[in-house]
Amino acid sequence: MMRKRIFEIIETAKDDDKISSIYDAVMLLAIIISIIPLGFKQSFPIFHYTDLITTILFIIDYFLRLITADYKLQDRSAVAFVKYPFTPWAIVDLVSILPSLTVLNPGFKLFRLLRIIRTLRVLRVFKAFRYSKSIKIIARVIKNSREPLMAVCTLAICYILISALVIFNVEADSFDTLFDAIYWATVSLTTVGYGDIYPVTTAGRVITMISSIFGIAVVALPAGVITAGYLEALTESKEKHK
Amino acid sequence: MMRKRIFEIIETAKDDDKISSIYDAVMLLAIIISIIPLGFKQSFPIFHYTDLITTILFIIDYFLRLITADYKLQDRSAVAFVKYPFTPWAIVDLVSILPSLTVLNPGFKLFRLLRIIRTLRVLRVFKAFRYSKSIKIIARVIKNSREPLMAVCTLAICYILISALVIFNVEADSFDTLFDAIYWATVSLTTVGYGDIYPVTTAGRVITMISSIFGIAVVALPAGVITAGYLEALTESKEKHK
Amino acid sequence: MMRKRIFEIIETAKDDDKISSIYDAVMLLAIIISIIPLGFKQSFPIFHYTDLITTILFIIDYFLRLITADYKLQDRSAVAFVKYPFTPWAIVDLVSILPSLTVLNPGFKLFRLLRIIRTLRVLRVFKAFRYSKSIKIIARVIKNSREPLMAVCTLAICYILISALVIFNVEADSFDTLFDAIYWATVSLTTVGYGDIYPVTTAGRVITMISSIFGIAVVALPAGVITAGYLEALTESKEKHK
Amino acid sequence: MMRKRIFEIIETAKDDDKISSIYDAVMLLAIIISIIPLGFKQSFPIFHYTDLITTILFIIDYFLRLITADYKLQDRSAVAFVKYPFTPWAIVDLVSILPSLTVLNPGFKLFRLLRIIRTLRVLRVFKAFRYSKSIKIIARVIKNSREPLMAVCTLAICYILISALVIFNVEADSFDTLFDAIYWATVSLTTVGYGDIYPVTTAGRVITMISSIFGIAVVALPAGVITAGYLEALTESKEKHK
Repeated sequence: MMRKRIFEIIETAKDDDKISSIYDAVMLLAIIISIIPLGFKQSFPIFHYTDLITTILFIIDYFLRLITADYKLQDRSAVAFVKYPFTPWAIVDLVSILPSLTVLNPGFKLFRLLRIIRTLRVLRVFKAFRYSKSIKIIARVIKNSREPLMAVCTLAICYILISALVIFNVEADSFDTLFDAIYWATVSLTTVGYGDIYPVTTAGRVITMISSIFGIAVVALPAGVITAGYLEALTESKEKHK
Repeated sequence: MMRKRIFEIIETAKDDDKISSIYDAVMLLAIIISIIPLGFKQSFPIFHYTDLITTILFIIDYFLRLITADYKLQDRSAVAFVKYPFTPWAIVDLVSILPSLTVLNPGFKLFRLLRIIRTLRVLRVFKAFRYSKSIKIIARVIKNSREPLMAVCTLAICYILISALVIFNVEADSFDTLFDAIYWATVSLTTVGYGDIYPVTTAGRVITMISSIFGIAVVALPAGVITAGYLEALTESKEKHK
Repeated sequence: MMRKRIFEIIETAKDDDKISSIYDAVMLLAIIISIIPLGFKQSFPIFHYTDLITTILFIIDYFLRLITADYKLQDRSAVAFVKYPFTPWAIVDLVSILPSLTVLNPGFKLFRLLRIIRTLRVLRVFKAFRYSKSIKIIARVIKNSREPLMAVCTLAICYILISALVIFNVEADSFDTLFDAIYWATVSLTTVGYGDIYPVTTAGRVITMISSIFGIAVVALPAGVITAGYLEALTESKEKHK
Repeated sequence: MMRKRIFEIIETAKDDDKISSIYDAVMLLAIIISIIPLGFKQSFPIFHYTDLITTILFIIDYFLRLITADYKLQDRSAVAFVKYPFTPWAIVDLVSILPSLTVLNPGFKLFRLLRIIRTLRVLRVFKAFRYSKSIKIIARVIKNSREPLMAVCTLAICYILISALVIFNVEADSFDTLFDAIYWATVSLTTVGYGDIYPVTTAGRVITMISSIFGIAVVALPAGVITAGYLEALTESKEKHK
């Protein structure tokens, strides 16, 4: 029963469960504090202490989650405890602890990257928004439209790759590697257009123009998918409240 | 009764209330005239006179609004007169008078900023559009969709912060401070892409590409929310007229 | 009756009226030929001949339209012939003839501008699309949504002006005149972002960020209005065909 | 009957037809392998072997498709075999074989271009997605909205040409040729805005501003068309499943 209560505290967030809310707030604060050093180039001494405290909190959180894995996975056998460390969230949790455990130079590239993974923990924060009706609807829209959005995304990526391949062969002088061309195609299709790479030959410009015009349709597709999904979610939501 | 009539003139704008319309027009003209000096770098002598006249008008307006505060706040007790100066509009009104009251050098930064706040008075102008059916519908759309728009806005801001944090750590050489990274992320997500700051390393470019593609979804969300809200408002508007 | 037939030829475009279709095709060709010189910096001798021929055609067209003005304006009295030259299309027609009548140097600025007005004649071309069901629907959408689109446009222009005024006062060094600031605000709000003018101070960047994020909502509004208008037009179109 | 089976293998893709699936996979792999050399500037020796193998596969595929042309065109007479090589897909297939048949220098421009056409074969890949419900819906949306999308595209192209013509005459110094102006107009209307070409005079900037603001409406049109088409497709899809 003790483990069930722990699970309720760390995972379930009922409106009237004060301890669970406090636990969420503390962990959220720990995540934010652990991210702050990422926003500075130099290292202040205080960061060592905050890092120590937040790491201990993350380790405790990790073990609490591990010992309640059977509730989480809704699998009462011992297998749950073996399976849990390989679930996506458990991996994020573990990886976000790793960089703080090292005594290596924190400027070391790999460890900075591991530290960035910690930012993924911020996603847990969205649990706090769980009771917001708006977030609920938006989450449902994205979830329901997941399949068409993936299809649109696949289309967009194919479109980017073909555009990149064509421009790379038509205007080889402006693009050193294929990656440059893919970067250019992505920045152009999404209409960001920094202007760091752009075609200079007439052939390259013609391709840019065709690519941009069709690109509008590619950008319009997700807008259409999301709008339709949102309209549907609103209608469903209304029918439920009738 | 005198005070009630004053309140009607400065606040209510009935179709057939000539004096109220004239008052609105005069105040609108005063606001526009008081803003004109903001559009010039040098100071012309005439600006001193226009500033004097418009400031006197603003002070009169402020006092007229103050003595009719009980009508405005629909609270007939004396408390209304104490509460009124702390309402948002009253603060805007007061702040927009302040810069003209000073004898300080008008080039002084803070006073330019206070003067900018005067531009907020322009929002009062929208009162004039009150009878336009279109503006009414658009206002209703934004009001009804306020909650999901706030949610979308929160999502966008979280997305910008995470993108900024990641790029700041991956490509430290292009971004001096975290603020630079946040500015870059905002300009990229909104697809403005000036090209004053952009990633140059491969890792940075990969993050830019991922960020831009997901950014389209973030931009598509408000479009979906507003379209759905507008469709709903149109349907409601039609049903009302049946 | 002769005049009625002329009116049918130049104006009405029935499916089975061969002569009218030929007239339209000839005029369209004349408009396109008369525009070609605008696409070149130097003047070729052939342009003098094409200009002569197209101008004569335009003059004949102008007089044919003038003598059938009573049919056009559906006003059988003589007043129609006086009113017609002041209708927008008649002014465009007249102005597009003017630059060719002069013996002045064609490089002269004003005459280039008059010649540009000739491009407006191209709008007559859209008459040819009249029978396309799609163009009909799109035209109806824009016509029906004219009022809310104007409202959205007004909002966008107000938003641009306020953004420009604020940035002009906050970051005076990057913007020489208010016009520069308005140009910057327009290019930013529409997310074009050339990168020729951009803020460099922290205050200016903060304003850019706020301006860009709210700008998405401003851009999403016309998308919502047009989508809603298009959906309505589709529904109407279906109900008609039932 | 042998030929009917071959047609089923190369063309039809039933869920339970293993050989057809394998054929599709092999051809897809061959297409991808044949495209890889396009992503490199230098030529590796292995590319000669992969080119040889994939070309042989493409030739076999071409002949298999040719001898089953009567099934494909649903025309049992001999005419089908004459007509087939002139269908769009057969031309793409033939053109994509051509560059590999040559013994000419592969750096030769024309042959690079022919090789790019091979990328069009990738479109055959989409056959693999045929059973995805999402892709099916998106394909139906684009197909059903083909006519209005073409109309919107025509409008956008007219808009680009007029903008280009006007800016080319108003600000001749920034644009060397009309093509430059058309490129600028396309990059601006699609809001990419690289910043490689932009107006510098006041007149040019005013045109840019007007062009950008109306451009939003032009960009909003395809979004509206696609959203409406998608909503319709969703409704139809639901009604079918009732």
